[in-house]
Amino acid sequence: MPETNRLYFVPLSEIRILRDEINDLFALAKILAPILRINILYMIKRAGSGHIGTSFSSVDLMLWLWLNAMNRPNENIPNSDTFFSSKGHDAPALYAVLTALEKLPFELIHKLRKLGGLPGHPDIHTPFIATNTGSLGMGISKAKGMAIANRLNGNRARIFVLTGDGELQEGQIWESLQGAANRNLSEIKVIVDLNGIQSDTLVSQTNNMSPLCKKFESFGWRGFVCNGHDFENIQECLNQMDKEEDRPQVLFARTRKGHGVPFMERVDDDGLYKFHSGAPSDANYPLALEHLVTKANDELAGISRPELKLAAEEPAVQPPVNTPARETVISAFGKALAELGRREEGLVVLDADLAVDCGLMPFKKEFPARFIECGIAEQDMVSVAGGLARKGKIPVVNSFACFLSARPNEQIYNNATEDSKIIYVGSLAGLCPAGPGHSHQSVRDISALRNTALSIVQPLNGIQARELLLWAAVENSKGSYIRIANTPVPEELANISMGKEIKPGWSTNLIPGHQALILSYGQTITYEAYRAVLSLKESGVEVALDHMNWLNLFDFGWIEKIVGPFPLIIVIEDHYRTGGLGGNLLPAIVEAIQYVPKFAIVGLEEVPACGRNDEVLKYHGLDAGSLIQKIKQLL
Amino acid sequence: MPETNRLYFVPLSEIRILRDEINDLFALAKILAPILRINILYMIKRAGSGHIGTSFSSVDLMLWLWLNAMNRPNENIPNSDTFFSSKGHDAPALYAVLTALEKLPFELIHKLRKLGGLPGHPDIHTPFIATNTGSLGMGISKAKGMAIANRLNGNRARIFVLTGDGELQEGQIWESLQGAANRNLSEIKVIVDLNGIQSDTLVSQTNNMSPLCKKFESFGWRGFVCNGHDFENIQECLNQMDKEEDRPQVLFARTRKGHGVPFMERVDDDGLYKFHSGAPSDANYPLALEHLVTKANDELAGISRPELKLAAEEPAVQPPVNTPARETVISAFGKALAELGRREEGLVVLDADLAVDCGLMPFKKEFPARFIECGIAEQDMVSVAGGLARKGKIPVVNSFACFLSARPNEQIYNNATEDSKIIYVGSLAGLCPAGPGHSHQSVRDISALRNTALSIVQPLNGIQARELLLWAAVENSKGSYIRIANTPVPEELANISMGKEIKPGWSTNLIPGHQALILSYGQTITYEAYRAVLSLKESGVEVALDHMNWLNLFDFGWIEKIVGPFPLIIVIEDHYRTGGLGGNLLPAIVEAIQYVPKFAIVGLEEVPACGRNDEVLKYHGLDAGSLIQKIKQLL
Repeated sequence: MPETNRLYFVPLSEIRILRDEINDLFALAKILAPILRINILYMIKRAGSGHIGTSFSSVDLMLWLWLNAMNRPNENIPNSDTFFSSKGHDAPALYAVLTALEKLPFELIHKLRKLGGLPGHPDIHTPFIATNTGSLGMGISKAKGMAIANRLNGNRARIFVLTGDGELQEGQIWESLQGAANRNLSEIKVIVDLNGIQSDTLVSQTNNMSPLCKKFESFGWRGFVCNGHDFENIQECLNQMDKEEDRPQVLFARTRKGHGVPFMERVDDDGLYKFHSGAPSDANYPLALEHLVTKANDELAGISRPELKLAAEEPAVQPPVNTPARETVISAFGKALAELGRREEGLVVLDADLAVDCGLMPFKKEFPARFIECGIAEQDMVSVAGGLARKGKIPVVNSFACFLSARPNEQIYNNATEDSKIIYVGSLAGLCPAGPGHSHQSVRDISALRNTALSIVQPLNGIQARELLLWAAVENSKGSYIRIANTPVPEELANISMGKEIKPGWSTNLIPGHQALILSYGQTITYEAYRAVLSLKESGVEVALDHMNWLNLFDFGWIEKIVGPFPLIIVIEDHYRTGGLGGNLLPAIVEAIQYVPKFAIVGLEEVPACGRNDEVLKYHGLDAGSLIQKIKQLL
Repeated sequence: MPETNRLYFVPLSEIRILRDEINDLFALAKILAPILRINILYMIKRAGSGHIGTSFSSVDLMLWLWLNAMNRPNENIPNSDTFFSSKGHDAPALYAVLTALEKLPFELIHKLRKLGGLPGHPDIHTPFIATNTGSLGMGISKAKGMAIANRLNGNRARIFVLTGDGELQEGQIWESLQGAANRNLSEIKVIVDLNGIQSDTLVSQTNNMSPLCKKFESFGWRGFVCNGHDFENIQECLNQMDKEEDRPQVLFARTRKGHGVPFMERVDDDGLYKFHSGAPSDANYPLALEHLVTKANDELAGISRPELKLAAEEPAVQPPVNTPARETVISAFGKALAELGRREEGLVVLDADLAVDCGLMPFKKEFPARFIECGIAEQDMVSVAGGLARKGKIPVVNSFACFLSARPNEQIYNNATEDSKIIYVGSLAGLCPAGPGHSHQSVRDISALRNTALSIVQPLNGIQARELLLWAAVENSKGSYIRIANTPVPEELANISMGKEIKPGWSTNLIPGHQALILSYGQTITYEAYRAVLSLKESGVEVALDHMNWLNLFDFGWIEKIVGPFPLIIVIEDHYRTGGLGGNLLPAIVEAIQYVPKFAIVGLEEVPACGRNDEVLKYHGLDAGSLIQKIKQLL
């Protein structure tokens, strides 16, 4: 067995020999299947994050499509078939296929979720990626657009769309189906990676969607079922599907999440599935590798070929991690939510299949009757909250900020017109973690929710998460949006409270100074600003740093007393430069003091890059080093 | 027959006698049915707008529910049943029922769509309205929230939700179904007003959704079918539905849109249905009234009662209409779109069942293959556009601004991350028409779309609509959002072009001046500003008025040359005060000239009121008179 402190992959040379020497594509696929999984495991372990379960369940389907089933896939020429994954978080599987088939430079397997490498979710700036996905449910609609465009150009090339089974909970899926049938778009072939497990647990435990085939057929589609790990069976079904001339088709490919590594195929005794996202632990990595290598070597032995020769890499050097506080913001929020549940009987918590990531497990365990799991159905969740509020409850609505601010944007406004007190909590807010890519980087939520009558607030640490939740639930008579960043809180910022008395529209001073006032929010960017300001202080530049919890609410007294005296205000956004704290604050300053000090906004100016947090912060000029330069220039 | 120049209704005194004297509720309902329609016709004719077709198709259902089927409806006490209409545009029918049953003061029938009266779509500030609707597809989700809240409070009162059949095209409907079944929410009873016609034409011609019952049953619901104009049949089905103890139920109530007035029940020879929205013409009003009065009197004669005594009102005095230009902005846009279609073969136009209102008929007629009717499915439409763009087409995506900016907000951003050139066109933008109410008043679209990489532009008149469409299609390499207001263009503003050479980020001067610069956009608010500035000029106050076509794009040269010299800048928003033109412009001014003149933003500060345009503009301080005062104060 290989050494455990190194990471192993199957090099292109080995794969090339197999591709050259094994003529039977079914035989080749069978041996490539574990090999691609070894490389997926490598990519995700090296990246430190990624979706392994779904990559393992879908890689056989992707392999077969690209190896044999499709006609000149994704070449962007007439009559070339198109493939993309609508769920998108299976990108490592697609990358493993594309690198093995030399559609992508093989070296990219070392650069998953790295700047300039392979993004966490599919992006068209990578060759052979047909469309951007990662936010769920858009795939069939996009396929319809592609098919209609093809038809206008006189061709009926096939469009293969891979979806998840949890993804089918999204309303857009069902919104998209009937039109495809009514237009007789038989070139659309949807393949459902039917692994039965979504982000947290079984689909059947989240929002059971069966009978799926009946559902699709009631929308005019033709349904097929196959074993998604059996290449002959997949091909048989694809052949049958091609005979359908006037209806789009859906293939329910029964798969196992984590397929190939037995301990990754199971839901745990606590009911949770542990391998949806995140890299395998140092303990699990060699065990998983061994399963896959054994499987590959068994397959090779079966066709009398020598054992695999693996290549090894040192684990990627991770940037130095500053001492993080023991408690993350999200875990503090989750504990506070459960505590609040004891006090406020009317509190009801809603989730859209992100209960673990959004810190909801303590509440769910303690108050199962007041925990409403909606599945991946954000619009439904928000309007359910609206109904609860109309009947006197206080709903707390959770999802990732990128989804929560956008997918149910109109539903949130509708609730706002009812003066409802609803607490929306958007996790994973801001530029980091930057590994998942732009579908998950929530950098426009402040502007998207600007006019929905919500107080938009963000904590700096766990203590403030608790303080703001209490404020939203008890003090604030209207709705709130609590924006939570899921990066570690550095020890230096971990113990700063908002004070005994919460003062809406006031900032908290972190570092005194007089040459300028820096305003930032959330631990991610504030820590960069914090280090920048301390470093400037060492060189004699005295700028103040304040943390701002209130992103669209400013006390005029605070503007007069704190902001007014400074000759220069610099707002540093964990958001696009426009429509964030700075964009909200500037008109308030003008209104409050009829005068504007020198004012600058530093923030994101383009679609955020994917990569390691430190790389991406630097790339966008938001790391401490870049901030030092910018502040100096502005002074 | 009554005089044709007056408007007739059945007074409460008449209704009261019938309610007191007819004990058989079926008999009472049969006679009330035409009576309520007379009052609906009156309300809508008097208001000058409203949805008559759907009010006539659904009024019998509502009447029966409130008259007999429900237990203490909407009383907001334990065990009282809840009713609301998810489609919401049938509000006149509900108002006719509630006024006839004296749940609402009868006098309100004279105040449909008037300030302080009955809003165009349901709003909870009206007694007995359970929730705000009007934006489609949210109803079943809301009912789930209400049912869960009730259960937490220990009761299982029934929740009746009325939906349209076109409304079933919305993805949220399907997103909401499975969870209701999985939670066994048998107290939820959805009634589909199955009139077979949506906004423009037949459901079957728009996006045929049949078989509906099979669809619902595949999501775990139990389906029933009745004649929605037959009270005995409705009650039979409701009785059967109440026997279902573990599944939510849907009742497909076959109805006729416009039922009661034969000429309102038909799709015209051109394939369009003409009575979805808008008041009947002066010619049609007496014809419709005659049908309904005859029907009522026949029913009365059948039970040996005297003929109806109608009451009459003069038609409501409409505010003086300034001479409007012959061409509306939307019709100019529509013609320009068809012209552009001849030049640009790649242009594809998408619609979500608002082809007539969005001016798309000329393009549709000339290029049927490049016109894609998506039905009421905005998320699908936007992602279809994304797929078209990925295959090289230039999609033009149309809907009302309120829906287009919000419902598919995430889908628009997803397309933006692909650098796609897509033209989004949001009609009905801004505060007016103010009759439909806040679900339709698009006053936060600029902020909601702020960070989606779109150039946000608005024309002042038809000429500029053409200029901006050409600019978006030919000059602009990226995506655009064209914001169109559907108010009449006054003659004074109708002929102002943006000039031979379009200069992005520059304004157009309408009135010269030096004491302040007023910036506004779109004909609605600009006309108020125009009159205010002219009036000020008469009293010797010289302020300049510029029209700004660019709402998030400012040339720094323009700021230096045009904005900089003024001592005071006043932006007047057809939008919430925050996140509109002013919120976008102020940071740009600070960046461009490092200096801020005195700067003020006038705009909406609360959820917009419903009413006549002139009333609502005044209510929010955005009419010429209020603007004069504000400008004087600021000078």
